[in-house]
Amino acid sequence: MHVLVIGAAGMVGRKLVEQLAADQAVFGFEVSRLTLADAIESPVPPALQDVATVLTMDLAEPGEPEKLIAGRPDVIFHLAAIVSGEAEVDFDKGYAVNLDGSRALFEAIRHENMREPYFPRVIFASSIAVFGQPFPEKIGDEFFTTPLTSYGTQKAITELLLADYTRKGIFDGIGIRLPTVCIRPGKPNKAASGFFSNILREPLVGQEAVLPVDESVRHWFASPRAAVGFFVHAARLDTARIGPRRNLTMPGLSALVGEEIEALRRVAGDKAVSLIRREPDPAIEKIVTGWATDFDARRATELGFRAETSFDDIIRIHLEDELEGKHP
Amino acid sequence: MHVLVIGAAGMVGRKLVEQLAADQAVFGFEVSRLTLADAIESPVPPALQDVATVLTMDLAEPGEPEKLIAGRPDVIFHLAAIVSGEAEVDFDKGYAVNLDGSRALFEAIRHENMREPYFPRVIFASSIAVFGQPFPEKIGDEFFTTPLTSYGTQKAITELLLADYTRKGIFDGIGIRLPTVCIRPGKPNKAASGFFSNILREPLVGQEAVLPVDESVRHWFASPRAAVGFFVHAARLDTARIGPRRNLTMPGLSALVGEEIEALRRVAGDKAVSLIRREPDPAIEKIVTGWATDFDARRATELGFRAETSFDDIIRIHLEDELEGKHP
Repeated sequence: MHVLVIGAAGMVGRKLVEQLAADQAVFGFEVSRLTLADAIESPVPPALQDVATVLTMDLAEPGEPEKLIAGRPDVIFHLAAIVSGEAEVDFDKGYAVNLDGSRALFEAIRHENMREPYFPRVIFASSIAVFGQPFPEKIGDEFFTTPLTSYGTQKAITELLLADYTRKGIFDGIGIRLPTVCIRPGKPNKAASGFFSNILREPLVGQEAVLPVDESVRHWFASPRAAVGFFVHAARLDTARIGPRRNLTMPGLSALVGEEIEALRRVAGDKAVSLIRREPDPAIEKIVTGWATDFDARRATELGFRAETSFDDIIRIHLEDELEGKHP
Repeated sequence: MHVLVIGAAGMVGRKLVEQLAADQAVFGFEVSRLTLADAIESPVPPALQDVATVLTMDLAEPGEPEKLIAGRPDVIFHLAAIVSGEAEVDFDKGYAVNLDGSRALFEAIRHENMREPYFPRVIFASSIAVFGQPFPEKIGDEFFTTPLTSYGTQKAITELLLADYTRKGIFDGIGIRLPTVCIRPGKPNKAASGFFSNILREPLVGQEAVLPVDESVRHWFASPRAAVGFFVHAARLDTARIGPRRNLTMPGLSALVGEEIEALRRVAGDKAVSLIRREPDPAIEKIVTGWATDFDARRATELGFRAETSFDDIIRIHLEDELEGKHP
């Protein structure tokens, strides 16, 4: 089977590929060919050198999605996106990549399908940013999508397209509404949600981190390991079980920023906590408090998707996966 | 004020313009200029000859939306669409007009707004086709949009764009989710919902009509007069009362096809009813039974939108507005 990962240099993309390198049967089928596409060069784990091709491309450029589909990948992970903060500032760029890029990909599949029968599975990284305040205490699976960011709008639109193309028999789509992934490894990116990770990741290695919102902010989280698990599960899943409602809110952990900090204190002590510097940022606060805080993700849970149930687990996974099980 | 009606030759468009001709203060402001745009030539009532300009254009053609916006209309009624049946058969055409045409219009406003401050009101004709089975008994205002047609998908996407452009301060948008308009005057069009009107309109003038679905089909209706009323009300409304959730399910009447027929019997007798010929069409039945049947349209009702409460009223309005109060 030929697997295509779009956004393979991003955090979840890289971890998904590493997971495949560690267990080449993880998707339940043999990966004979792997195409890794991103705007920057995607890393290739040594174990996958023989099957991997790396493409550096811009999904929003005319003709690029067609090139990706010319190789008729059987399973497509579509993880590429302009992140929320950037899509809010650069209206044109956000729509060009997050909406037009996704739609051009879907259109390339449709045209390939019209040329010669072709029916790939498309697993799309959506986001809980499709929801907007005010919310019920727990957001159920049938709650409406009224995003309060352009990023969330672009994700919600792509979800609708994914469902329509699936309904028309063009491809076999699954939308994975990711919780905020935490603890993100590496350096801060432009996502407005970055601080949720920064305030744990940086103090765990003795660095300062900035907290731009109040500790009473509640949010919805899953670890990078859980996020990769969602995509792996979506590749293995019998999609007949999903029905026409192809976009699924993933399970996650609902927690306060204050609870993150208390978990940090239990794992790494007061000294780590003292490295969190409060620096309120009304722009970040405005975006973040428009986001969802808690879900009843029943459908995805019934379909076998799983996430963490405590911030202690989320921190432990970070220590295991990023810091070889230790912290200073 | 300059008013632009896109889709002015369509049924609701024509009736909206006729309403304006009959009462030039109906929108609560003076209409000093009226632009009527459609793919076919829009009729101009004599009372509006002095202020009206007619444009024959294809909203999906590059450059056409910009021409509409160059005149900086203050209030824009966007009623243009490829209907559901046609959008389902012609995937490209449906997306080109219903999605790309709408988006190009919104983009033209954004670019005009960037050139020189400009903030029109945009009143968009959406549809209950944004919803898809299975439904709760009554669909509330926070139910999710999972359309089961490409037409519904295109409407749901345009709703999301409308809300995002409004949130960004580009225009002042309102999405009007129309019930199925019944009794549609004139000739049948390609809408899958056409028969709901045909089985009343044709027998009322002694003609046969085809019923392609079972009498137990339940659906959601409003008269053409109520539909025009929604758009007039949207033009007059204080939009500060709406908040960021700009797409409103309009009030309507939930009724069975059998109830339509019984109302016809009360108004026009058994002879009229005998003109309805049963001719089941699985393709129509499949589309229609995927549609919504009943709503709790609380938000729109609280905002002052009104519809009929019985099919006897809907038939009476048809007799008054289309048949000079009589039937044969």
